[in-house]
Amino acid sequence: MDPVPAHPASLRDLPLVVVVGGGFGGIRLVQRLANAPVRVVLIDRSNHHLFQPLLYQVATSVLTESEIAYPIRRIFRSQANALVGLGEVRAVDRADRSLVFADGTRAPYDWLVLAAGAVSSYFGKDGWSGLAPGMKTLNEATAIRARVLQAFEDAEAETDPRALRAHLTFVIVGGGATGVELAGAIRELAVEAMAPDFRRVRTESTRVVLVEAGERLLSSMGEASSEAARKALQAIGVEIRLKSMVTDVFDGGVVVAGERIEADTVVWAAGVSASPLGETLGTELDSAGRVKVLPDCSVPGTPKVFVIGDMASQTCAKSGHQVPGVAPGAIQMAEMVAGIIAAETKAEQRGKTPPPRPTFRYKDKGTMATIGRARAVAEVSGLQLHGLSAWLAWLLVHLVLLVGFRNRLFVLLSWAFAYLAYSKGARLITGQSRSRLKTPIGEEMQRLARA
Amino acid sequence: MDPVPAHPASLRDLPLVVVVGGGFGGIRLVQRLANAPVRVVLIDRSNHHLFQPLLYQVATSVLTESEIAYPIRRIFRSQANALVGLGEVRAVDRADRSLVFADGTRAPYDWLVLAAGAVSSYFGKDGWSGLAPGMKTLNEATAIRARVLQAFEDAEAETDPRALRAHLTFVIVGGGATGVELAGAIRELAVEAMAPDFRRVRTESTRVVLVEAGERLLSSMGEASSEAARKALQAIGVEIRLKSMVTDVFDGGVVVAGERIEADTVVWAAGVSASPLGETLGTELDSAGRVKVLPDCSVPGTPKVFVIGDMASQTCAKSGHQVPGVAPGAIQMAEMVAGIIAAETKAEQRGKTPPPRPTFRYKDKGTMATIGRARAVAEVSGLQLHGLSAWLAWLLVHLVLLVGFRNRLFVLLSWAFAYLAYSKGARLITGQSRSRLKTPIGEEMQRLARA
Repeated sequence: MDPVPAHPASLRDLPLVVVVGGGFGGIRLVQRLANAPVRVVLIDRSNHHLFQPLLYQVATSVLTESEIAYPIRRIFRSQANALVGLGEVRAVDRADRSLVFADGTRAPYDWLVLAAGAVSSYFGKDGWSGLAPGMKTLNEATAIRARVLQAFEDAEAETDPRALRAHLTFVIVGGGATGVELAGAIRELAVEAMAPDFRRVRTESTRVVLVEAGERLLSSMGEASSEAARKALQAIGVEIRLKSMVTDVFDGGVVVAGERIEADTVVWAAGVSASPLGETLGTELDSAGRVKVLPDCSVPGTPKVFVIGDMASQTCAKSGHQVPGVAPGAIQMAEMVAGIIAAETKAEQRGKTPPPRPTFRYKDKGTMATIGRARAVAEVSGLQLHGLSAWLAWLLVHLVLLVGFRNRLFVLLSWAFAYLAYSKGARLITGQSRSRLKTPIGEEMQRLARA
Repeated sequence: MDPVPAHPASLRDLPLVVVVGGGFGGIRLVQRLANAPVRVVLIDRSNHHLFQPLLYQVATSVLTESEIAYPIRRIFRSQANALVGLGEVRAVDRADRSLVFADGTRAPYDWLVLAAGAVSSYFGKDGWSGLAPGMKTLNEATAIRARVLQAFEDAEAETDPRALRAHLTFVIVGGGATGVELAGAIRELAVEAMAPDFRRVRTESTRVVLVEAGERLLSSMGEASSEAARKALQAIGVEIRLKSMVTDVFDGGVVVAGERIEADTVVWAAGVSASPLGETLGTELDSAGRVKVLPDCSVPGTPKVFVIGDMASQTCAKSGHQVPGVAPGAIQMAEMVAGIIAAETKAEQRGKTPPPRPTFRYKDKGTMATIGRARAVAEVSGLQLHGLSAWLAWLLVHLVLLVGFRNRLFVLLSWAFAYLAYSKGARLITGQSRSRLKTPIGEEMQRLARA
């Protein structure tokens, strides 16, 4: 079996566009280049596109991993000019017009688009990452799921009241959409799904503490939405600490505004910083590690190198505000950059002058966050929805955005089970959580036997 | 929150039955004790009951983890006299009538049933386990899934023909049901699901080698079934090596009957041995590590200690043959032992003489194995089915045996997608497979750029 040429022969002289990252931005960009006179290679570290907005539902056993992930190869199965490669890009060498991979090999590009997203950021306290995991990948979400479920198991077998309290205390750091949604989902998991299955421990007494340094939750939304979210969370029993900084994370808890809270499970949703790949460009970054790009999303000095999505420090031409790190921002940048590449490669092919480059304008598609069953807040084109209507809008939008009919159907069914039958389908402790398997079942049974 | 008493007060004076293992045997045993005058504690290392016969479908991306696993607590949600504990039992101290846990704590029992199943056995070559993983747990199945999918990714980016061959060679050691089913499923994955998604590599050329030391496949079935399985596997392109011993497993392949086969992926389905927990009983074991139990499944010398399922060396009173390590065997032993415990505790409670103990009779429920889409072999009460009818029987039996309506529905839908739409839903590389992320994408792209 000899290697078969990758791109069809007819494409082999075309410029090579390399895209790093198969998130919302990278996928859309490659799709939009389907009819451009270019060859495209999309590189990602993992083999699947991940629907990150629903990761918190994997962490709380509502959805299963495969429901929010889709093989990247499959997306481009029918796009003749697109290839997919699995690899870890470590650096960009702009002078050499090449990428450097983790294994030291290099790969050239004619055009380059960096869309590698963001990683959890601990504001310099990197030691906290093991104690308070973030939630950006499937592996992280299943690790958090294992921690959460293990905490209930530990509680069931615990005889010491103080340790029991810590098992059943969950601290979520960060009151943005991820933190709000995760806090609500953990309370719901405890009250609805776990309660009937545990005998000794009252899982309804589970304490979920949502810590936010700012003055209100969901600071990217309006004050009415923040207030609605706060009320909805409090109604289902989430404890909210506003204007509270986490000053320490230790093995077994956190210190919040001077108060020590003992908790087995601490999840970090307080912030992200851009993929470290941006640093290797050797150009100016903002405080969150994002690359300060020009209005056309290109990197100063190299018009054929672009940065989009969460990695880009881009302002909206109209409002002058930083474009938020959400899927619509990445998608809109991807569409603009794909348009630039298509127009300039076409012009080059025909020996014509390319059109002037556009300036990025962010169209705010709205923001939404869900708070457990049948409650959500949404702001769409000036309209504010709270409660059931917002929740239905949230369900619909997320279903539509999922890739693939199969995933849509399975997510819809999983939601039906979770929200109508109060049944979470993916209550699995898997992965490397063995070290936490400390349930003192022996003591528990001695107590039983004595009783 | 004070600890709530675990068993209802009315049960607290009843004898304590401890069951180790939440597989088919353990679950059935506890269920059958629902109305007996006993308290029951079921202990398992993991929080879920696993439907092991479908593990190979998780390893080949047909099903997702949560579809074949079910929280053990949930099964016993409504059974008042049953408690569930998560813990790792290391030893049995029969003299002290107690269990010893991994953390050193002890727990007493009045009655004990060991149903901890089997582990992959390498016939003394334990060094092979890392190179040729077995498939007994969800973590093992997802690790094999990651290896298989990564092998195709590596192949897509490979330029060296010999290395390419090794990427696309899969060796399955052991021609029992697991080996037969896995070999067929990998060929099918390669030919149907992967082929349209890969550009350079022809995944149809994937070599799947099924190695069996004995004279025929499926030795527990009749010769006609073995032959039908062999033909069906060959028809879909599986290479079968009968009467072939694996004499070495190395990093990158195996030696089979003197021939060196280079293969990235080697899976061990050649045999199992009983859980090492049996050794700690200090009674006689057979060559597979199973506990030689009396005809009532009790351990010689301790009539209130039983061993059932894959851990038990038990012969059928009627045929005199060893009971095979399959779900019906475990379930039938569980039902007999539950009957003994119920009868004797009732008699004790009423001050009466218990009835004499029964002798185990194994009722052969039949055997079946599936070979890819629409092909299977089945032997049920003397009837031999091959082909589509066997496959439909296989689908039905496995659906019925799954725990929970949700799992049945999701498995049925996943099968519909896999078998009708040729779409495998769970093509995810997750877990700790990073060290294998060696895809030389850089070289591949340089080659592309030169082309």
